[in-house]
Amino acid sequence: MSRCEEVELTNMCMISDGKGNVLVQNKVNNPNWSGWNFPGGHVEKGEYVTPSVIREMKEETGLAIENPRLCGIKEFHKLKDGKRYIVFLYIADKFSGELKSSEEGAIFWFPLSELIKSDKLIDGFGDMLSVFTDENKSEVFYERTAEELKTVFM
Amino acid sequence: MSRCEEVELTNMCMISDGKGNVLVQNKVNNPNWSGWNFPGGHVEKGEYVTPSVIREMKEETGLAIENPRLCGIKEFHKLKDGKRYIVFLYIADKFSGELKSSEEGAIFWFPLSELIKSDKLIDGFGDMLSVFTDENKSEVFYERTAEELKTVFM
Repeated sequence: MSRCEEVELTNMCMISDGKGNVLVQNKVNNPNWSGWNFPGGHVEKGEYVTPSVIREMKEETGLAIENPRLCGIKEFHKLKDGKRYIVFLYIADKFSGELKSSEEGAIFWFPLSELIKSDKLIDGFGDMLSVFTDENKSEVFYERTAEELKTVFM
Repeated sequence: MSRCEEVELTNMCMISDGKGNVLVQNKVNNPNWSGWNFPGGHVEKGEYVTPSVIREMKEETGLAIENPRLCGIKEFHKLKDGKRYIVFLYIADKFSGELKSSEEGAIFWFPLSELIKSDKLIDGFGDMLSVFTDENKSEVFYERTAEELKTVFM
C-alpha cells in the first residue's frame, strides 16, 4: 500500500538584520490574500526544501541568504479538496546582495516588535509569527470542527 | 495547475534524559533495514506532523513526550518512483510514563557521545544524527549524479 499523499509544499523565511528589524513583504499580487507577510513561495517538484527557500529569497528580496535554519511548520488541509498544505518556516540572519522588490510585493525592513502589533498583516500571518518568534513552538495547524476553526500551537 | 505532489511523510525523534543519554531503538522488523536508530514512523493521512510524532513515541517507547521541537528534516527522492520522502526530525526532553519496547525493536537508553561512534547504526542514520546534534544544520538530502549519491547538509 502506498504511504504517499498529495501535498502542497511551500516555504517562508524571516530574514533578520541583527538590529531588531525583519524583512517584510507587502503582498499585492493576489486580491484575495494581500497584506504584510514574509517572503516565500512554492517548493518545486524535484527541488529540496532548504534550497527552495534560498531560491525564493533571492527572487523576492534580491538577497542571497546563508545557512537558513528551519524553525517550524504551518499545516492545514485545504477546504476545497482536503489535501495537505505545508509551509516550512525558516530563519536567516546572514545574507549578502542588494535589496530588491519583486512583482509579489514591495520588500522593506521593519521592527519585529512593531510588526507583531501591526493591523496590516496578511490573514493567518500572526499565527506564523508566533512560531517564528517562540522557540518553544514548532508548529501551528488548524482543526475544523462543526462549530469552529480551531488554531493549535505545538 | 495543481502545485501538489505525492509525498511520503514520516517522523523521528531524539528523546533525551537530560543526563547525556538518548533513547535508541534496535530496529528488527525489516530485514533490509535493521540496526540502531531513533524511534519514528509514518504521518497518517489527515494527521498533523507534530501530533504524529507524539503518537509514534507512545507506540514505540511507551513514553508520553511533551513539547517536541522540530530540529530539521531529511529528504530524498525514492529510486523506485522518484517520489519525495520527508522525515521530520524532532527533539524531546520532557516525557512521562514507563519505558516499553514495541515489535519494531527493543528500546534502551544509550550515551549520545558513544552513539555517534557506534558501528551498529542503521544505514543513513549517521547523517540524521548530524542534523539532530548540530543546531547549524537543518537538513540532509541526497543528490544522485551519474557517478555518485552525494550527501548534502544545509
